[in-house]
Amino acid sequence: MSGWLAVAGLGPGADALVTPEVTAALAEATDVIGYIPYVARVAPRPGLELHPSDNRVEIDRSRHALELAAAGRRVVVVSSGDPGVFAMAAAVFEAVEAGPAGWRDLDIRVLPGITAMLAAAARAGAPLGHDFCAINLSDNLKPWELIEKRLRLAVEADFAMAFYNPRSKARPEGFGKVLDLLKERCADTRPVLFARAVSTPEETLRVVPLPEAQPGMADMRTMVIVGSSQTRVIARDSVPFVYTPRSVVT
Amino acid sequence: MSGWLAVAGLGPGADALVTPEVTAALAEATDVIGYIPYVARVAPRPGLELHPSDNRVEIDRSRHALELAAAGRRVVVVSSGDPGVFAMAAAVFEAVEAGPAGWRDLDIRVLPGITAMLAAAARAGAPLGHDFCAINLSDNLKPWELIEKRLRLAVEADFAMAFYNPRSKARPEGFGKVLDLLKERCADTRPVLFARAVSTPEETLRVVPLPEAQPGMADMRTMVIVGSSQTRVIARDSVPFVYTPRSVVT
Repeated sequence: MSGWLAVAGLGPGADALVTPEVTAALAEATDVIGYIPYVARVAPRPGLELHPSDNRVEIDRSRHALELAAAGRRVVVVSSGDPGVFAMAAAVFEAVEAGPAGWRDLDIRVLPGITAMLAAAARAGAPLGHDFCAINLSDNLKPWELIEKRLRLAVEADFAMAFYNPRSKARPEGFGKVLDLLKERCADTRPVLFARAVSTPEETLRVVPLPEAQPGMADMRTMVIVGSSQTRVIARDSVPFVYTPRSVVT
Repeated sequence: MSGWLAVAGLGPGADALVTPEVTAALAEATDVIGYIPYVARVAPRPGLELHPSDNRVEIDRSRHALELAAAGRRVVVVSSGDPGVFAMAAAVFEAVEAGPAGWRDLDIRVLPGITAMLAAAARAGAPLGHDFCAINLSDNLKPWELIEKRLRLAVEADFAMAFYNPRSKARPEGFGKVLDLLKERCADTRPVLFARAVSTPEETLRVVPLPEAQPGMADMRTMVIVGSSQTRVIARDSVPFVYTPRSVVT
């Protein structure tokens, strides 16, 4: 019996954005582990055990997955988006490092997926077409001061910026501070993209100039992308195209 | 006759990493346009015209695609990886903005793909599991000084760093300067991942501590990922796992 563990990205929501590699791993799995809404995206079938769990138990979930794989099961840990970007893969390797030495030699594979910022950027045009950064705005796992420091340096570097987890019920204030910091430092023409629930039936897309951006435009299902100083907006009848040119004019 | 233009990401190389959305667009296309090696990844069939073109003609290629779509053809522009990350999508929107007003109301969609940094990160573990930046190290389209400025600020922000286009025959020197700059500013324990031709039969993977990183370890098919100060290496019998923890310990 030779078990394995795949940490798989289900993409932002639509089945058409799940890679064949992930689909194949799910078809071979004996166990699927993950946060309730992500496990709900996997079709039940005979021989497959589903293990949905609550949010914020990432390390427990990872240990459980590793124990099952060590016992010979074929285990898929599911994440939305890409498992390596603010998702389950880091938690699994934290558990590997802290766990029994034998876990290091398990067959562990990370299967990439379409992460939220790529799906959101694609819907709007190409706002990440030049150098950019990705910042998780949740201060659950890092000090708020570090987020502000990174924002200031990202503005100075003139990166386009992709913000994950901009705002939640438990953290209603932070995103307003982020917008205030950007409004102080960036030109009024800079576009902000709010892309909610991309590729699902609830998808909404909104592009506003920075001064009009408001905290209430984002929630936990929203990806926020702020252009660099070079980012362009192409007006048209529907939501404008937003793109960052490949060249920098200096 | 209603034409459309899809700018599609073929992922890093393996068919198992092409999304069903992209596969469906290719199945409906009348024309496929792109750089020679990417068009070569599309199977010929009756009713499909392939238009391979040379490197560095991105704007000509984009105009051609837009003209065909405006004439009612169903056109797919193919990129490797994700079209929105240092690839064809920005060039298409540059052509839209500079072109006839009617092009703005064409049916233009960007279909995301697995970009090289996500594929490379997945192979190594989860080096991009915390805040990170993506920088194109080619100075073909921006001044070298801007690359160095962004590197200094990225180190100060303590981002993990994903480097696209680290080195080519035409630009043999820059990557050495990048490594020198990082060696001056970062601890000797910081891991550097060289991931070449990920998901293809030529794939190679190498993880070295920063002082051992050499310019010759990268070429145009290599994705380079440098960890943040928090990135961990888990030694084991094969290539070590590399991951950046979700939490920052301060």
